[in-house]
Amino acid sequence: MIVAKKVFKIPSFTLENGTVLRGVELGYETYGQLNAAKTNAVLICHYFSGTSHAAGRYHESDPEPGYWHSIIGPGKAIDTDKYFVFSMDVLSNVNTKLPHVVTTGPATVNPETGRPWGSSFPIVSVGDFVNTQKLLCDMLGIQKLHAVAGPSLGSLQAMEWSARFPEFTDRVISAIPASLATDAYLVAVLNTWGAPIRLDRHFNDGEYYGQQEPTHGLTEAFKLVTLNALHHAWAKRLFQRRWTDTNQNPIDSLDHTFSIESTLHETAKGRALQADANSFLRICRAVQMFSVRERKQKIRARFLIVEAESDLLMYPAYAEDGARELIELGLQVERFSIKGDGGHLDGLSEIHQAAEKIRRFLE
Amino acid sequence: MIVAKKVFKIPSFTLENGTVLRGVELGYETYGQLNAAKTNAVLICHYFSGTSHAAGRYHESDPEPGYWHSIIGPGKAIDTDKYFVFSMDVLSNVNTKLPHVVTTGPATVNPETGRPWGSSFPIVSVGDFVNTQKLLCDMLGIQKLHAVAGPSLGSLQAMEWSARFPEFTDRVISAIPASLATDAYLVAVLNTWGAPIRLDRHFNDGEYYGQQEPTHGLTEAFKLVTLNALHHAWAKRLFQRRWTDTNQNPIDSLDHTFSIESTLHETAKGRALQADANSFLRICRAVQMFSVRERKQKIRARFLIVEAESDLLMYPAYAEDGARELIELGLQVERFSIKGDGGHLDGLSEIHQAAEKIRRFLE
Repeated sequence: MIVAKKVFKIPSFTLENGTVLRGVELGYETYGQLNAAKTNAVLICHYFSGTSHAAGRYHESDPEPGYWHSIIGPGKAIDTDKYFVFSMDVLSNVNTKLPHVVTTGPATVNPETGRPWGSSFPIVSVGDFVNTQKLLCDMLGIQKLHAVAGPSLGSLQAMEWSARFPEFTDRVISAIPASLATDAYLVAVLNTWGAPIRLDRHFNDGEYYGQQEPTHGLTEAFKLVTLNALHHAWAKRLFQRRWTDTNQNPIDSLDHTFSIESTLHETAKGRALQADANSFLRICRAVQMFSVRERKQKIRARFLIVEAESDLLMYPAYAEDGARELIELGLQVERFSIKGDGGHLDGLSEIHQAAEKIRRFLE
Repeated sequence: MIVAKKVFKIPSFTLENGTVLRGVELGYETYGQLNAAKTNAVLICHYFSGTSHAAGRYHESDPEPGYWHSIIGPGKAIDTDKYFVFSMDVLSNVNTKLPHVVTTGPATVNPETGRPWGSSFPIVSVGDFVNTQKLLCDMLGIQKLHAVAGPSLGSLQAMEWSARFPEFTDRVISAIPASLATDAYLVAVLNTWGAPIRLDRHFNDGEYYGQQEPTHGLTEAFKLVTLNALHHAWAKRLFQRRWTDTNQNPIDSLDHTFSIESTLHETAKGRALQADANSFLRICRAVQMFSVRERKQKIRARFLIVEAESDLLMYPAYAEDGARELIELGLQVERFSIKGDGGHLDGLSEIHQAAEKIRRFLE
């Protein structure tokens, strides 16, 4: 399945906080065909550090398919022979330096000044992400979503759809989810993710474009993201207590590290080099603000909640709380628990465990 | 129970890594009386950000007793009418600015240069902490410990005692513990705790004494410590999704925060203002290096492992692993699980739940 990024342009877009953004451009991908009645659309919403590349490959030799490739494609759980599947980059997507990401955010040029927005870029919300997706639906002529699905921040967007456009949202697949609102603890976790960025001397209150960027701070931020999304059993199995360099005993210098420290650092640095610090902070804030609790009475969708048993970021207790609230509303809620020790990331790498459950849920 | 800090001086002390420290001074406290046979000694080892103030008050109107006050005192679980209880500040104790802490570390003066050690202060280990405590025992004429106990980093020291001085250590009370070694995940968590310090421009590779200190970085470090030591159910109950200022909606500015963010910041800042960044980094390293696994065959002690069911830092799974390894060695292991949603901190604030278990274990 070879896919291409398309660009959706919104000349003027009013954010939830009232700010009007001009010249919004957001990337999107589509897999499969929209039927004549336009009733087979399945929207996939991406996770915190994800993109609209949910499935397929950009070219034949592309080594890395989209993140939910194992469940999206011809004959797969989300069957592109049956469904028109599509996905969209969010506003302020963090991966501003990935060639296939198209987003409007702090790193893009403010048409009114001709310079990057920087710290003047407004706060965006999960509601804003959903509103841009709704405009894309309108453009495509889609009157109703057969389903909306996503992992992590993607699950928040899917839930937001059900509360914001209840008549438009038949089914929600909410993977590795929060409950109906980001809870206080996760709000605080997201605060700690942003802290290293704010501490980096090159951050300069968000005004760093054209200068040295706060890559060190962003690396430490991604280190927290990566670690919080993993699990201790996985880490123990892979790293034990090995040193980075067998000749450099950590007892002799703070510069001598354990293998998991250096590996985590390199991984995080790789993620930081394709991302933007201001955008990162805004996505943190969007997750912090998420809540459909006050609007839950409006929800009409059927839910499939897919949790990961070893999740140390969006705990299974959150899924449990969310399911209880939805059931109390009289809604139909199914659940599936991914087994493993990969933590929150099992919602990506082990999603195939839920394939049959998802297939049946969509039927 | 009014207590006073005493000072133990070690003219020359050789660390595990071979470095010789001259003029070591460490604070200690004692509660109760050593019997004539000197067989009633119970050593309490302190936690990461703790001190030797395990019980009692410094004066009648002292508002805050020692951290395990609920289980140490006349007639209490660790009964000072029966036992001679004592506790000692570790080398490189983080709370260098607390008036009652006496420690030798990066912030103290290197007698050879007349200036603070700073980054040249060597790496210290849990084994070093235990060796200083052993010297204190020797000075007091103690031939054997009736028990050694402690929470968190204190539990690592207690376990270290059992492997380092097996004939000296009759009983170990290991509260909110790691397994027999700090695992890879916790090694990585401790790396993230140090990151904000290293990012702070005032850290200056550890050479900040007499100048502006890296208080901002240390605050963010303590924010991580505090958050990792708590639990989401506790946070939700206390904070819900309140804003810091009801007039400042987080949707309008990154400067508008949620209540848990500002409270956590103030709490962490308070902890940072009494602490030292270089010392903090060394205590992180000491925890990272902890392992008795290679020496476990030497252990002879009886164990009481007290875990906290909601612990998100030293997971109950760690206690489970540790207990299994000790039982496989043929050792006597008892367990107790603290109920609650206070996370790792329940090992301090809820330790009274284990009082009867501890009392019987000591008999």
